[in-house]
Amino acid sequence: MNHYIGIDLGGTKTIIGICNKAKIIDQITIPTPVKEGYAKTVEIIALETQKLLAKFKANIKINGVGIGAAGQIDPNIGNIIYAPNLNWQNVPIATDLSKILNLPVKVTNDVRAATIAEWFYGAGKGLDNFVNIFLGTGIGSGLVINNKICEGVTNSAGEIGHICLDPDGPICGCGKRGCFEAYSSGRGIENEVKRRIQNGQQSIVNSLVNNNIDKITGKIIAEAAKQGDNLALDVLKWAGKHLGLVLANLHTFLNPQKILLGGGVLALADFFLPTALETMHNLILPTANRGKELIDFAMFKNEAVLIGAANLFEYYNN
Amino acid sequence: MNHYIGIDLGGTKTIIGICNKAKIIDQITIPTPVKEGYAKTVEIIALETQKLLAKFKANIKINGVGIGAAGQIDPNIGNIIYAPNLNWQNVPIATDLSKILNLPVKVTNDVRAATIAEWFYGAGKGLDNFVNIFLGTGIGSGLVINNKICEGVTNSAGEIGHICLDPDGPICGCGKRGCFEAYSSGRGIENEVKRRIQNGQQSIVNSLVNNNIDKITGKIIAEAAKQGDNLALDVLKWAGKHLGLVLANLHTFLNPQKILLGGGVLALADFFLPTALETMHNLILPTANRGKELIDFAMFKNEAVLIGAANLFEYYNN
Repeated sequence: MNHYIGIDLGGTKTIIGICNKAKIIDQITIPTPVKEGYAKTVEIIALETQKLLAKFKANIKINGVGIGAAGQIDPNIGNIIYAPNLNWQNVPIATDLSKILNLPVKVTNDVRAATIAEWFYGAGKGLDNFVNIFLGTGIGSGLVINNKICEGVTNSAGEIGHICLDPDGPICGCGKRGCFEAYSSGRGIENEVKRRIQNGQQSIVNSLVNNNIDKITGKIIAEAAKQGDNLALDVLKWAGKHLGLVLANLHTFLNPQKILLGGGVLALADFFLPTALETMHNLILPTANRGKELIDFAMFKNEAVLIGAANLFEYYNN
Repeated sequence: MNHYIGIDLGGTKTIIGICNKAKIIDQITIPTPVKEGYAKTVEIIALETQKLLAKFKANIKINGVGIGAAGQIDPNIGNIIYAPNLNWQNVPIATDLSKILNLPVKVTNDVRAATIAEWFYGAGKGLDNFVNIFLGTGIGSGLVINNKICEGVTNSAGEIGHICLDPDGPICGCGKRGCFEAYSSGRGIENEVKRRIQNGQQSIVNSLVNNNIDKITGKIIAEAAKQGDNLALDVLKWAGKHLGLVLANLHTFLNPQKILLGGGVLALADFFLPTALETMHNLILPTANRGKELIDFAMFKNEAVLIGAANLFEYYNN
């Protein structure tokens, strides 16, 4: 049996699991000890991994460790080039973790890991050309083209959250304006709701957060939308319209078999997806002539990165 | 020696050449007999090819024929799926031409053929990830990703001219609004100059065409720009701004080694490229941190499609 350790290394929490293909045998979640710095964080992750392994050591042979981490990563040399959430630059995490655990280690970008999970065992199974868009706090994507991950020359391919939809659009976390992420991500939606309330628009969101707009979250916006709040509904349609534009352009440009959508923002899908699909339909290249069958949902939810990470050896060794 | 026939099958003219790699041994140009219909057009092309071959028959052995044609093409079965300029749908041109010439025939989209020419012998030589953008009357592109052409599931990948930059933008030939092609193609630039003149803006273009705006061409606009005409210069900067946005987004999304620019619009490069590069620089994902070295010019000009077509067997047989 092929058992691997998968590690979903996020800015706030880290999930470590023992996996066999898409099956998670056991997993633990720890807060990512960002403040401890890089070396100590690697030590803590190694220690937690060893604890998890200790429960199974007699029965399970581990072939390797895969890490999915947010940021720009070079999977060939196993370095994290730049991870803003972790405040790491050019750290040889595969080498360092391998030394402690005495196991081979591979690392890739978290969205690419999730894309591998979908590709091997989920909604992308059997496809050789698809895009996997993750709509969370931010937006990222993984690209499978001609049966290979598109990594990019400096390993930043798939950064779809930062394609510019309007140079005069809302400000994005990256400092630029009008990025796709500034419209259709969780943070983009929250910021737009806040902006509209600050501009004096009426909304029940105000009372749901006792007039403290810093407390506005996706859940609050969903609650307001469910109660028929016009501001919340309008902002979600606005997010959907921009998503639809990107979906149409993705299809026009790459002509993929599928575009998969995943991430926490999909909890609000009822309120933005109809607008997104309608916009996509209106803007898609007519000759391409493809409709709703183009769009599908990612199968794996919170465990996508973990499962993908545990399967990195299946991809990067071939 | 590997000799192939290359055919650049365009809506107005067809170039037929005998090529050895990037070297054109001999070539002829004929008007494409569009009005004769599909079957007759294939016969005429075959006849002209045979005439050309007759000059060399004793000395040159031809291994096959490659066609580059504008439209949506399935290179696997050798059919033109849809060629609006030729008014053809689902025609088995590879099979039909092969029967007459008694040679194997391959066919692909013209921009992909040009991309193969650049990839094998031109500005894309040695690259495995690049985008080749053709800025002509319309705009198209060829994508090489992981050392393969990205064809798309219905063979329409690379249709970058029809990605939507603004759903409320200028009308495009495809019927939609705000396509990239409606801004930065030859036709897009001409139409914008016409619109501004019709809106009463002053320009020496007016006198250059004796107030007949139907006579406005790229050459006229270039002449006006050279004479410092503000309207012409502004429109070219406007085209450059939109090109720059697309270049930035291409890099953010695909992170290619190079983006090559080719096509007749580059004759006006002095007037739009500085704006395009400046806009690209402002909108590019900061972490990607790449500048002018990203952009290069296609090496082959009017013969790109011909040379690429003559080399289709080198690509599609591997």
